[in-house]
Amino acid sequence: MIFEETVVLSETFDTALARVKSALAAEGFGTLTEIDLQATLAEKVGKEMDRYVIVGACNPRLASQAIDAVPQVGVLLPCNVVVRQTDEGVVVEALDPGLMATMTGSKDIEPTAAEARRLINNALDTLTGTASTDGAS
Amino acid sequence: MIFEETVVLSETFDTALARVKSALAAEGFGTLTEIDLQATLAEKVGKEMDRYVIVGACNPRLASQAIDAVPQVGVLLPCNVVVRQTDEGVVVEALDPGLMATMTGSKDIEPTAAEARRLINNALDTLTGTASTDGAS
Repeated sequence: MIFEETVVLSETFDTALARVKSALAAEGFGTLTEIDLQATLAEKVGKEMDRYVIVGACNPRLASQAIDAVPQVGVLLPCNVVVRQTDEGVVVEALDPGLMATMTGSKDIEPTAAEARRLINNALDTLTGTASTDGAS
Repeated sequence: MIFEETVVLSETFDTALARVKSALAAEGFGTLTEIDLQATLAEKVGKEMDRYVIVGACNPRLASQAIDAVPQVGVLLPCNVVVRQTDEGVVVEALDPGLMATMTGSKDIEPTAAEARRLINNALDTLTGTASTDGAS
């Protein structure tokens, strides 16, 4: 699968985005890049769309291990987490870090990919947990 | 496949990196992000490694079409191009944009993914072509 899971948050976009980055940081994933796709596409091609940010999350320890196992795996780094506004709420979707193993076919990278997957899942679970107590759907 | 193809350049790293970005720009792909992985991992975990840059390339027109077809496809954007120093030269590897179609299973995104793939291939071919006239291996 391309995604770990989909989380829908009911708070405002900016609050949701801050919570996503905070949840990732708690699992050791810093925000290495942050692309405001809405602003980028509005400027470049005049597109009108809802808020849409791609957070590039990187756990330096795991990234280091991954590169050692499969040098070219950087094409799959950082782990992208999409935060986008929809009519149903703020949708959060993360690229499955397990792809580092399935797509390269490397046994050496499997433990790293599995740990990255577990930590990204933890971050998403944190969001869901907190969202529930806020009464989010 | 995860990669379009692998290109090896014999010039200096900085010259190769500039040529990669220029070749991508000629095909309509701007550099949306540029991660100096060597510097990042040196700072964060004290890792020693050769030069390693991840260029996040984005063709706004194609990105716009892709998002319209599959809203969550942002997890695969921008198209990462790794530029890394090895003993054999500067290796350039691009993520296969065709993955946008194969991994989402969406028919709607296929024409966009195919065009992105063609343009990324053009950029890589430009690098190889110029490398040949420079006498690169």
